[in-house]
Amino acid sequence: MLRGYTLPQTPSGRSALAPRPPWHYAGNCLAIEFEADAAAVRSLLPAPLDFASARCAAYFIEWQCATDDGEEPLDPVNSQYKESIFLVSGRYRGEEVAFCPFIWVDQDASLMRGLVQGWPKQFGSTWITRAYPLSGKASAQHAPGGRFGASLAAKDRRLADARVTLQEPTRSPPSPSFANAVNVRLFPNLARGLHDQPAVCELVRLKSRDVQIGPILKGPATLDLHDHPRLELSMLRPLSTGSGYRFSFALTVDDLETLEELRSR
Amino acid sequence: MLRGYTLPQTPSGRSALAPRPPWHYAGNCLAIEFEADAAAVRSLLPAPLDFASARCAAYFIEWQCATDDGEEPLDPVNSQYKESIFLVSGRYRGEEVAFCPFIWVDQDASLMRGLVQGWPKQFGSTWITRAYPLSGKASAQHAPGGRFGASLAAKDRRLADARVTLQEPTRSPPSPSFANAVNVRLFPNLARGLHDQPAVCELVRLKSRDVQIGPILKGPATLDLHDHPRLELSMLRPLSTGSGYRFSFALTVDDLETLEELRSR
Amino acid sequence: MLRGYTLPQTPSGRSALAPRPPWHYAGNCLAIEFEADAAAVRSLLPAPLDFASARCAAYFIEWQCATDDGEEPLDPVNSQYKESIFLVSGRYRGEEVAFCPFIWVDQDASLMRGLVQGWPKQFGSTWITRAYPLSGKASAQHAPGGRFGASLAAKDRRLADARVTLQEPTRSPPSPSFANAVNVRLFPNLARGLHDQPAVCELVRLKSRDVQIGPILKGPATLDLHDHPRLELSMLRPLSTGSGYRFSFALTVDDLETLEELRSR
Amino acid sequence: MLRGYTLPQTPSGRSALAPRPPWHYAGNCLAIEFEADAAAVRSLLPAPLDFASARCAAYFIEWQCATDDGEEPLDPVNSQYKESIFLVSGRYRGEEVAFCPFIWVDQDASLMRGLVQGWPKQFGSTWITRAYPLSGKASAQHAPGGRFGASLAAKDRRLADARVTLQEPTRSPPSPSFANAVNVRLFPNLARGLHDQPAVCELVRLKSRDVQIGPILKGPATLDLHDHPRLELSMLRPLSTGSGYRFSFALTVDDLETLEELRSR
Repeated sequence: MLRGYTLPQTPSGRSALAPRPPWHYAGNCLAIEFEADAAAVRSLLPAPLDFASARCAAYFIEWQCATDDGEEPLDPVNSQYKESIFLVSGRYRGEEVAFCPFIWVDQDASLMRGLVQGWPKQFGSTWITRAYPLSGKASAQHAPGGRFGASLAAKDRRLADARVTLQEPTRSPPSPSFANAVNVRLFPNLARGLHDQPAVCELVRLKSRDVQIGPILKGPATLDLHDHPRLELSMLRPLSTGSGYRFSFALTVDDLETLEELRSR
Repeated sequence: MLRGYTLPQTPSGRSALAPRPPWHYAGNCLAIEFEADAAAVRSLLPAPLDFASARCAAYFIEWQCATDDGEEPLDPVNSQYKESIFLVSGRYRGEEVAFCPFIWVDQDASLMRGLVQGWPKQFGSTWITRAYPLSGKASAQHAPGGRFGASLAAKDRRLADARVTLQEPTRSPPSPSFANAVNVRLFPNLARGLHDQPAVCELVRLKSRDVQIGPILKGPATLDLHDHPRLELSMLRPLSTGSGYRFSFALTVDDLETLEELRSR
Repeated sequence: MLRGYTLPQTPSGRSALAPRPPWHYAGNCLAIEFEADAAAVRSLLPAPLDFASARCAAYFIEWQCATDDGEEPLDPVNSQYKESIFLVSGRYRGEEVAFCPFIWVDQDASLMRGLVQGWPKQFGSTWITRAYPLSGKASAQHAPGGRFGASLAAKDRRLADARVTLQEPTRSPPSPSFANAVNVRLFPNLARGLHDQPAVCELVRLKSRDVQIGPILKGPATLDLHDHPRLELSMLRPLSTGSGYRFSFALTVDDLETLEELRSR
Repeated sequence: MLRGYTLPQTPSGRSALAPRPPWHYAGNCLAIEFEADAAAVRSLLPAPLDFASARCAAYFIEWQCATDDGEEPLDPVNSQYKESIFLVSGRYRGEEVAFCPFIWVDQDASLMRGLVQGWPKQFGSTWITRAYPLSGKASAQHAPGGRFGASLAAKDRRLADARVTLQEPTRSPPSPSFANAVNVRLFPNLARGLHDQPAVCELVRLKSRDVQIGPILKGPATLDLHDHPRLELSMLRPLSTGSGYRFSFALTVDDLETLEELRSR
């Protein structure tokens, strides 16, 4: 009998691209709040979501991931990846939510786990300044005065450049936040005549547990989004930029709530 | 309104990871027929398929891909990828078919198009000797005497090494062939309690049209498959190796036939 | 005793990054002639070279490389690389020569062999449309009407985009050509006080032998060079673009002529 | 006038692959002491060095680098790289020194800075478990009980796997140490007849300043070195493994001491 949470399936289940949940994550995050064009934000919301505001956030994260056996971080090519997430604001049945129109990762297992959760993941190259517990020109500090940058590229073109200068501690993480994100799970059909009728299309609410957040520092930030002939991230080009944030966090994912079947639309 | 054959969806549909079919492909292929352990082959077949024989084939392909507008090959980072495909033999309702237990690609759009067709794609690094229309030590020849190699690695470990020395023309392409492949389309659920009940699990038969095959040359070959702590390709370690093949081919994909719903199993 | 044409050296010499010459090359090349700003071209010429004209050429090449034993192409990760070369015109003691201000490759051994010859190699990502011996939207043709593109990126930013539509055969390869290139071999010192006094700084003329060129096709072309915060390729932004070319060629390198010692300057 | 510490040179000097020193570094390091075959160690020492002992060390380091202007870490693709360094013991004129027979990095600027210092750098892929300031299965801890791994691959083959379980603080960094490393600076000639007579071949002693070392933790470790058809790292396969170490450190390089001209040998 074949096993595997995803393909490929084998008798052991060990070869599957995404292992069976739970998935435990730890990440160092650089985030920037910004305001985009309201019409652009509105146009990127899937039908069941209403426009709430033009407030957006970009997250650049250096992740490590493990299953329950916890061995993956010891062969870290199987565990580490970097990710750039863009969130917009929306409203679902009156409640404020976050929605992700664009996200890029650099490992296949992360892409697969993401598709299962409705994250619209593609491959991209993310770089994020690292903090070191030492002083010197090469050592950014997770402390007031620390300066951090991040970049995103896809298909050999730069898509985003971010800069944050840490200034002060805060207890409020950036917003919109993926803590209250809703996604669209979409799995298309290929049979002729069904290209517009996906096999799966549903609005889902992400669930995470055992969330930990380390000390948060914030300060002034800049964010530039660049045009790309195919990838439309620059629809969200900032009209104004709010604060930047840096913090570490950890969480576990092994559940998801389906809000609405969207196939009939 | 949001458009896009896959995520991410935007008003234009242009940002989608996999564009709307048809998908046109052209490839240079190095292939090797081999025989694996019969029990291993049997153990990798999904339930509706019966064991037919221990005959397998490995394909290493340098692809170029386009949609109907045909512009992708002009910005080739959006069009080119390399792939390693392993096929085993099976029987479905008495008919001989090919089944793919393992496949590796190096571009995200190819991974997404593959998942839609049930190919169990993961990321891997494939290298294939290229032919040049010139003589010399650096120029392999698509002609009798031409020597070609290919390699596959995933997660920083070598998985496969192949060598072929071309000897003579043939009109028979290698077998098993993806012309008659059946796959399992699988899209999991993440809601707690449903990790073993996928949203989509169906046996499908691939369909391609407008297939062209260039001149085929064949000759003696070797194939080595290496152990990996997680990826079980070496289950198919060759007990004997048959002929190697080199040829170019082109095809178009925009359809798929569902053979059986597998969710009830 | 330690052996190795370059570091690292071992008793066998086998681990050296660049193997001992001769180095045999075969490549598929897409090239574009263009005219840049004359002052920019002049400013990029090393002192012993005089300005000749503003004529430049860009070459995008998919290479395969071998030593005398000829086995490298069979484990092609050791043999294949892609390269983007930019040549300007110059004059040395009255004779017209080509000079390379910028060049990008994607394999370390190629970078090392390049430094030895005075090529100012850095790492970059080059993509070039491939021809296939088949028709169809995914198959570019090395024939009149064939459309080809190429791109270059470095450090996650796009530097160059090229397009060529083949129109007619020609017997003249593009110019300036690396057949008559002169380079500067430069190896710096690190001892304090010697940062401006390199250990090696000499003007050299490249030598190649056993050159073969396949059928050349030419036609109209475009070339866009993009700004980068550090890499100054856009100094050569085309004022006008000439013909584009596509051809295969092969050559062997195992010699170099030193024209002038430059350290005293 | 052209400027640039290395090629390529431009009027501004900004495009040079390696910027002008000083070079400031900060790194997180996982290191393992081990004992290799004495004959192998002896055979890898360049002529002026005598055999001292079979003691070796492997270092896996996640670096960030900056020049005096300190802006590079803000566009981190220009600043970050990962490195695997293997050091053996030697004796120079009676003094114990370290010598590096093999080293792999993943950025071109690091390779170039390395060649200038005599490091025998090649390209390789290094992965190192990261510590996070949070608990959980995905978060390794820089504290007793913390478990870390590292891997190295080159040309799509795994070369090394390391594991360390931190147990206790120590004030002694691992040994041999690159604090007292000597290298061979080697820059070959290509003119025919001179392939065995390099332009530069000298024994040098590395110099660093402003060295900072953070808290060091040590504990039991394993190290596996794998065979490769060309790269001879497995000559150093451990006969026994000593302690593993984890620590952060920072240093500045802008000087080098030439010990001996080796060209006459």
